[in-house]
Amino acid sequence: MYNQSELKEIVDRALTNLPYNNEALKLIDPVRYVLSKGGKRLRPVMSLMACNLFTDTIDEALMPAIGLEVFHNFTLVHDDIMDQAPVRRGLPTVHEKWDANQAILSGDVMAFIANECISQAPASCLLKVFRIFNKAAIEVCVGQQIDMDFEKAAIVREDEYLRMIELKTAVLLAASVKTGAVIGGADDKDCDLMYEFGRNLGLAFQIQDDLLDVWGDMKVFGKTAGGDIVSNKKTFPFVKAMEKAKGVQLKELQRLFSAADLNPEEKVSGVTSIYNSLGIKDITEILAHDYINKAFGFLQKVSVDETRKKEMTNLAISLIGRIQ
Amino acid sequence: MYNQSELKEIVDRALTNLPYNNEALKLIDPVRYVLSKGGKRLRPVMSLMACNLFTDTIDEALMPAIGLEVFHNFTLVHDDIMDQAPVRRGLPTVHEKWDANQAILSGDVMAFIANECISQAPASCLLKVFRIFNKAAIEVCVGQQIDMDFEKAAIVREDEYLRMIELKTAVLLAASVKTGAVIGGADDKDCDLMYEFGRNLGLAFQIQDDLLDVWGDMKVFGKTAGGDIVSNKKTFPFVKAMEKAKGVQLKELQRLFSAADLNPEEKVSGVTSIYNSLGIKDITEILAHDYINKAFGFLQKVSVDETRKKEMTNLAISLIGRIQ
Repeated sequence: MYNQSELKEIVDRALTNLPYNNEALKLIDPVRYVLSKGGKRLRPVMSLMACNLFTDTIDEALMPAIGLEVFHNFTLVHDDIMDQAPVRRGLPTVHEKWDANQAILSGDVMAFIANECISQAPASCLLKVFRIFNKAAIEVCVGQQIDMDFEKAAIVREDEYLRMIELKTAVLLAASVKTGAVIGGADDKDCDLMYEFGRNLGLAFQIQDDLLDVWGDMKVFGKTAGGDIVSNKKTFPFVKAMEKAKGVQLKELQRLFSAADLNPEEKVSGVTSIYNSLGIKDITEILAHDYINKAFGFLQKVSVDETRKKEMTNLAISLIGRIQ
Repeated sequence: MYNQSELKEIVDRALTNLPYNNEALKLIDPVRYVLSKGGKRLRPVMSLMACNLFTDTIDEALMPAIGLEVFHNFTLVHDDIMDQAPVRRGLPTVHEKWDANQAILSGDVMAFIANECISQAPASCLLKVFRIFNKAAIEVCVGQQIDMDFEKAAIVREDEYLRMIELKTAVLLAASVKTGAVIGGADDKDCDLMYEFGRNLGLAFQIQDDLLDVWGDMKVFGKTAGGDIVSNKKTFPFVKAMEKAKGVQLKELQRLFSAADLNPEEKVSGVTSIYNSLGIKDITEILAHDYINKAFGFLQKVSVDETRKKEMTNLAISLIGRIQ
């Protein structure tokens, strides 16, 4: 069985060795830049780990897993244009370092590099893997659309928010572990259980990300506290606070949220103190844990010896660990 | 055997009936808009016609052909953002009618809708079809990059220009007919011949497009004369004129081409008269016909009864017919 760091090494090596059509270097330079910036490689690592649950040889799962990572980075390049984000993983985004046109086009080619990787799935399960990928890719676009729509929406309900993060974040994690399971030879029932494991873990992961933005230890987390609050992002804590706040407090939350004349620190501390008085941290934490527990419930049902599930369990726990 | 207009009808119907994930209508509205705007549907029609060369039933080739059309329109949506083009097929472009972010995201989802269509190729040739598609898609991105690079290049050589249009335009036509041939059951040799047929026809088609922009009958062609000249596009006539012009004429061509203070009509008539004095129209026409003849040479070698090639020949001639 491979552990997380071994798999990350395998993934990093494969990404470094990806063959490119180098006829127009300007097209590929941003692709190399984006793919070399690192990150946790969560999707391909989990895909390989899911494969490894069912079989000892994970070679056939490698290129499709790489395809999922390339796709994920494609979405980041385009999302960063849409969000006008200047920095990603501590480095300038592609549209900042080059320009928006370059980010559009280099992003586009990544979608088809991802395809090329997906096409290297074993012939026996190519169609299954391709369909899982396409469905997830379309859903990720739908999720990004709903997220963009939220910016202009007066009210976002909890169920709408959860559906958005399900589409934008969770389905790709779900598709990743399902892809690994399919290639590992799992039966349909286990593949579906793995999908649900990934989907629930993805939901937990995103909700926790929202939580850490407000209450996380910034030294560990590596971001500025309250970044989501400063940029008026409708996160789970905000959605929940808008639902629970009444009267003066509701008005104050709305004022702080939309105020353009406040300095960032005032805004963050104002919003955070409303969150605190409404008990939003606990509610958010409980919801994240609910999803993690659901995720483990699905993993438990997978018809594989419990000892084989140790690495996957460790990885999931290490993701939760970020809360403490 | 189906003729061109029957195939166009089949394609239009299939495009109208494409199933969408309608969870975020704002995402799909621009997709419907783009795909309903019409156009010649050259790629899917030729793909089906290529299939029909080898077999009477073209049903299995339909969805992959639709995928090629969706992909083509995806590239148009993104190219129009990059070129800041306000109009396409007589209607506002997506980024004009909505905004750039919407055009990026709705374009993106089209790439995966195209994938979904491609995935409906018969299982027996899915991998082949998928690979043909991915290779072409990556090459189209490379072609667009080279085209963008040309904007900033002082000199573009003829061979560089021809390679750019090969990538940006011809390979997708080549991939379309090859895909049809593969699904129609053609052997490898015939598939490659069909690819070369499509590639050369695509080159002829683009060179002729450049020619029509300067010398075409505007009533037939439906565009404003000299649009490429006004927008400083480095087309084949320009590249060739820059190669042939000497001394004062070369300086005048450069002055006219880069002048920002000229009115469009002066610019078009000035550049056109230099083209005319250098015999650029004839050179361009001869090159387009060379490629068409090459295309027909490849089609001729395809091991199918000549009577079956009639529709494809007619279609190719109808494309050339635009010159007169």
